[in-house]
Amino acid sequence: MNTEIVMPVNRYNLDWKVGYSSDPSLAPSKWVNASVPGAVQLDWARAEGWPHFWQDGDFGRYAWMEKVYWTYRAPLPSLSELGDKRLFFVSGGIDYRFLIRVGEQTLHAQEGMFRKVELDLTEFASDEEFLEVVVFPIPDSGEGEGRVEANASVKPAVSYGWDFHPRLVPSGIWCQTHLETREAEHIREFCFDYTIEEELSLVRLDISVELSRSSSGEIEWSLVDPSGEVVDGESISLAGADVVDGFCEIHDPELWWPRGYGEQPLYSLRVSLHGSEGEVLDSKSRTIGFRCSKLVMNEGAWKDQEAMPKTRCVPPMALELNGKRIFVKGSNWVAPDVFSGVSGEDAYRPLLEKAANSNFNLLRCWGGSAIGKDSFFDLCDRLGIMVWQDFPLACNCYSESPQFLDTLDQEAEAILKRLKGHPSVVIWCGGNELFNSWSGMTDQSKALRLLNKKCFELDPDTPFLATSPIMGAGHGGYLFRDATGRECIDVFQSARNSAYVEFGIPGPASVEKLSSLIEEEDLFPPKKGGVWELRHAFGAWESHPDTWLCMDTIEHYFGRPESIEELVAWGQLLQAEGLKAIFEEARRQKPYCSMAISWCFNEPWPAAANNSLVSWPCEPKPALRSVRQSCRSTLASARVKRFSWRAGDMFEAELWMLHDGLGSIKGDRVEAYLRFDDDETFVLGWYFDALEEGENRIGPTLRFQVPEIEDQTFKLILRVEGRPDWNSEYDFCFKADDM
Amino acid sequence: MNTEIVMPVNRYNLDWKVGYSSDPSLAPSKWVNASVPGAVQLDWARAEGWPHFWQDGDFGRYAWMEKVYWTYRAPLPSLSELGDKRLFFVSGGIDYRFLIRVGEQTLHAQEGMFRKVELDLTEFASDEEFLEVVVFPIPDSGEGEGRVEANASVKPAVSYGWDFHPRLVPSGIWCQTHLETREAEHIREFCFDYTIEEELSLVRLDISVELSRSSSGEIEWSLVDPSGEVVDGESISLAGADVVDGFCEIHDPELWWPRGYGEQPLYSLRVSLHGSEGEVLDSKSRTIGFRCSKLVMNEGAWKDQEAMPKTRCVPPMALELNGKRIFVKGSNWVAPDVFSGVSGEDAYRPLLEKAANSNFNLLRCWGGSAIGKDSFFDLCDRLGIMVWQDFPLACNCYSESPQFLDTLDQEAEAILKRLKGHPSVVIWCGGNELFNSWSGMTDQSKALRLLNKKCFELDPDTPFLATSPIMGAGHGGYLFRDATGRECIDVFQSARNSAYVEFGIPGPASVEKLSSLIEEEDLFPPKKGGVWELRHAFGAWESHPDTWLCMDTIEHYFGRPESIEELVAWGQLLQAEGLKAIFEEARRQKPYCSMAISWCFNEPWPAAANNSLVSWPCEPKPALRSVRQSCRSTLASARVKRFSWRAGDMFEAELWMLHDGLGSIKGDRVEAYLRFDDDETFVLGWYFDALEEGENRIGPTLRFQVPEIEDQTFKLILRVEGRPDWNSEYDFCFKADDM
Repeated sequence: MNTEIVMPVNRYNLDWKVGYSSDPSLAPSKWVNASVPGAVQLDWARAEGWPHFWQDGDFGRYAWMEKVYWTYRAPLPSLSELGDKRLFFVSGGIDYRFLIRVGEQTLHAQEGMFRKVELDLTEFASDEEFLEVVVFPIPDSGEGEGRVEANASVKPAVSYGWDFHPRLVPSGIWCQTHLETREAEHIREFCFDYTIEEELSLVRLDISVELSRSSSGEIEWSLVDPSGEVVDGESISLAGADVVDGFCEIHDPELWWPRGYGEQPLYSLRVSLHGSEGEVLDSKSRTIGFRCSKLVMNEGAWKDQEAMPKTRCVPPMALELNGKRIFVKGSNWVAPDVFSGVSGEDAYRPLLEKAANSNFNLLRCWGGSAIGKDSFFDLCDRLGIMVWQDFPLACNCYSESPQFLDTLDQEAEAILKRLKGHPSVVIWCGGNELFNSWSGMTDQSKALRLLNKKCFELDPDTPFLATSPIMGAGHGGYLFRDATGRECIDVFQSARNSAYVEFGIPGPASVEKLSSLIEEEDLFPPKKGGVWELRHAFGAWESHPDTWLCMDTIEHYFGRPESIEELVAWGQLLQAEGLKAIFEEARRQKPYCSMAISWCFNEPWPAAANNSLVSWPCEPKPALRSVRQSCRSTLASARVKRFSWRAGDMFEAELWMLHDGLGSIKGDRVEAYLRFDDDETFVLGWYFDALEEGENRIGPTLRFQVPEIEDQTFKLILRVEGRPDWNSEYDFCFKADDM
Repeated sequence: MNTEIVMPVNRYNLDWKVGYSSDPSLAPSKWVNASVPGAVQLDWARAEGWPHFWQDGDFGRYAWMEKVYWTYRAPLPSLSELGDKRLFFVSGGIDYRFLIRVGEQTLHAQEGMFRKVELDLTEFASDEEFLEVVVFPIPDSGEGEGRVEANASVKPAVSYGWDFHPRLVPSGIWCQTHLETREAEHIREFCFDYTIEEELSLVRLDISVELSRSSSGEIEWSLVDPSGEVVDGESISLAGADVVDGFCEIHDPELWWPRGYGEQPLYSLRVSLHGSEGEVLDSKSRTIGFRCSKLVMNEGAWKDQEAMPKTRCVPPMALELNGKRIFVKGSNWVAPDVFSGVSGEDAYRPLLEKAANSNFNLLRCWGGSAIGKDSFFDLCDRLGIMVWQDFPLACNCYSESPQFLDTLDQEAEAILKRLKGHPSVVIWCGGNELFNSWSGMTDQSKALRLLNKKCFELDPDTPFLATSPIMGAGHGGYLFRDATGRECIDVFQSARNSAYVEFGIPGPASVEKLSSLIEEEDLFPPKKGGVWELRHAFGAWESHPDTWLCMDTIEHYFGRPESIEELVAWGQLLQAEGLKAIFEEARRQKPYCSMAISWCFNEPWPAAANNSLVSWPCEPKPALRSVRQSCRSTLASARVKRFSWRAGDMFEAELWMLHDGLGSIKGDRVEAYLRFDDDETFVLGWYFDALEEGENRIGPTLRFQVPEIEDQTFKLILRVEGRPDWNSEYDFCFKADDM
């Protein structure tokens, strides 16, 4: 049996032009070069010589593009040498409603950007015809302005404008698209399913291959283990069948683990179709990682309901992978570009490597954005980053119309079939914030009952959440200091949630980034309106006009900044310290609490300030380093009740050892120091005994009277003897009496 | 077109015997007469001359019956005159795992009691063979004793023992079962679906008829409206098809309403199969009522989540029927007999008429019991009693095994197809108390995801609840006074729930009923152990050894009773007053609260005391009359903080008008009186203004110092001028100083 088949694929990239018209039956009056995958907006802007939309920020001039029909056009190659082969048009996705035609003949019409298109164009292969893809105006339910326009479609709602995203609604061919030649007899679909049984010692793998037509040849399949050895395989004589099933058992499989808990072994499943002479007609391969994912009850949550009348217990949010409870540390992932068509492995890789280096073990792919391309999930598989994947619904009361439900059904099926083999995808979720007042959906909503059904049918062993947050999980806040003056530190120390699935503290972009976006005369001081507001420093969030720069908060702690450098430094410090406080508090609330997932990791365009940890395209804010520290498997940690102190106050810090990695650790000594105006004072030493796997330990509370100092900040430093990798530092604000 | 077809059905009842053996291949050594439908236990007991199980209460002697194989046997008639006809065995249900054979030939094997069996026995019609139904030992997962034995089956768990139910696990043919002759060409299945559109003005009805084989005849169908007029219909030439679909639109349909909100018009859908000569080969008819059922958000519930971190809002529990919010008043229905095989219309009718007369508009058919037979739902359709139907799962962590899920899938499908046409069935629910600690299932449990899927596929327009209670709904309590001394009155006045889906106060059976069950020497005073405990007066509920007689509570309020009459009177008074307090409090909490469903309406055998409103088989306890009063559409109501008072206490009562019927009512005057030792004192008059439809009104609080009296109770009486049907009375306990 062969272990590797390289099948030459004859692929042809098409030479696309694009233009627009007011009606799909009218030819565009002007054609410009189209970059595929991409977006019509980018093609048009390029042709017009406009600066990149994120540079000039003039989104208004894109508005008309939403309302017209865009036609992509490419000449079909004259493939007279095609012989017995077939010519296929293959596209990974076209955004959003479209039809495909050759000449006058419409070959396909579709609503939905997440399912593949495969069309047999053989009959046109020597016609010297044009292939056209006509993209309809963007979805608009007609029920209002903004995200509500998307409430009857499976179009990512974020494009219609969000607190971190301008209104810019992409259209066009957004995924890999080409022509290819295939044998008439080829593999149409190749799927697998597996179950893990007998205490993780046995994988039962089912393989299914569907052919383009009945065949008298053979299917060969083989499963190759991570070291390259063939585990199992067989040759199956087709004898006129067009579907064939295979099965194998893998004893003592190498399991896929999230980073920090083990390796990421990946198997390879290969299948080839052979003609009656044994010749290879087609072949495909897929990577598989075996893991068992469950959401199990949070420890202590069964005891929540004691008094009568009781209600139900909160739903489970503790992630158990391969039988081990994993404390989830991560962030919400949004599309890395306003135009998902331009995102690919080059955009994903540096971001995902930063996430991995930040000690994150999970990203929640947020439902407002487009779902990632294959390379996103390949990278997550390899990096050991688990993925919680929302379906692309967010913050709307989605339609119950048969037409919408039918589109959702088909799109969900395509998404599930494409992603379910990725071991990294450990949670499915119906979409974002759907069970809150501003969306208005409920457990009775058909779209979510449908998604539950689809997931149960196609991937029953992966957990499904109807939405985020579910009952008991905490969602928000997003500010260091809320409108009532309450600090995030206090908010989270008072909270009791099964998981924190979104929380954020805003921080400004770097001075360099801001300088690249904002003319020098506008740079300081920032003003409402104009470019700062365009860049979401002000007015991005309706109920808080000061978001996301939060000048009021910065001034509350540090007074009015005197330069852009000072402003950015203070703003970034608040973000860093706020996120430290929340991540570490969530970890202290373990085991009742099982997840800390911040809002958000990245951003799709350069904002002046927001909750992201990384500025577009991939520039970490200082908070990322803080989060990395707070997410170490083991660290010394301090629980302090507030951020700002005055001379004479009794500073208090509860000392903790946080530990959620594999295995136990030996006891050790923590030393706590306070540093005021560069003078470091030893305050307390604490010997802690050995910690079991997953065990946190509370230690003593140190107290120290805050002296009068010059600086605007002071530091608490925790040092662990012989383990500097467990040391921690916290900054606090010192408020002079006149502030 | 004909409007009514009467098709002569040739039905043959079989002459059944039953016996048992240790192995299905061994013939029973003794046969006894079997009553079908029924249960093997009842047949055996009858043959042995035992008293009815509920009379002697010796359940121990039934225990061995769970472990053996029971064989039903009947001679097949010799039907030589069968001609072209076919002979069918038809059974509505056999409990629980069984096989059917003729001679040595096994024709069918099944696990599950809720799906019909239809077997073509034509080949045996003249063989003078025996038909045998072999019923296997009761399901037992082997994981423990009691209800847990049922956790891998779709067998109602209540039979394994419950706080209101002895352990007695029925087996056998429990539904209508007979032979019938049919034409070779006959109707195999006849289904319909409908949607209501355009603001309830249009019904779109789809009809589907499946034949036993392809036919060259015709299908005629007609829809007849409640007045007997044919609304629509057609003749469809089959031309060799074996499936045919019909469709019609009904403009301005007469909608089905729950009682108190309108009429219960029922349409009739008739279908007949005609041979090529026009002769009637088969016909069927079904009753349809058109209604639109939704669970919508409880008023105010969207505002529950204000502070960060937010979680989701509670799921909706407000029932909207045909666009109108209905305040649900009802009770939990349990199987009316330990042996569901003996229940039928004769048992259902008097109970359901009592429920209707008690101003109930909904019964929750509780998941621990077997699902009712068709006549139950026919009666509910006609009486305007809505049904919340649990699937038969309760208080277990049900298996995730493929075998169990497959059985559940098939049983759920049969249940859905049988019941979904009944307009009364307005809510589906996965089962009882599954998301609480003592069950341990969660939203991730496959059984419940499967049920969501089945309901969504087969009846998507009827709401589905995964379990009861869902988050925000209140479940329990079940005592007048809990272990801490807190009264139900205070418990419910302090609660805030979207719905109260189970709550109960225990009450003893009548003196007559008790006397018929308990020998005179044991009757008074009741003692733990012995017959009172067997009859669940003591020790029925693990955490409260005093349940359900609650002697301690009776003595707390009234001192030690001196006779069985006094004991029963006090116990029944507590049940009556407790339920008044809860039903009326739930109504005062409208609109946030949307349902008051007590535990429970009936009981499956005669207990000495429990939470039921009606003693077995159909004897109302006095509490039923109180509940009837509290569930009137309109009434004057008093909110009083506690039940017992002493001389000198300042008695307080908040006056209310409760109104949830149709239409508005005019303003009127309420007069409040207190009656001490037969002396009635006028305390307060309150003029209330007109009430809108569904509006409650709070009035003044009256205060009056409790005098020294002789009686152990006193009364608060509310009278509404000219509307004695709105008057209300409440009893309170007067405690002398020495108590």
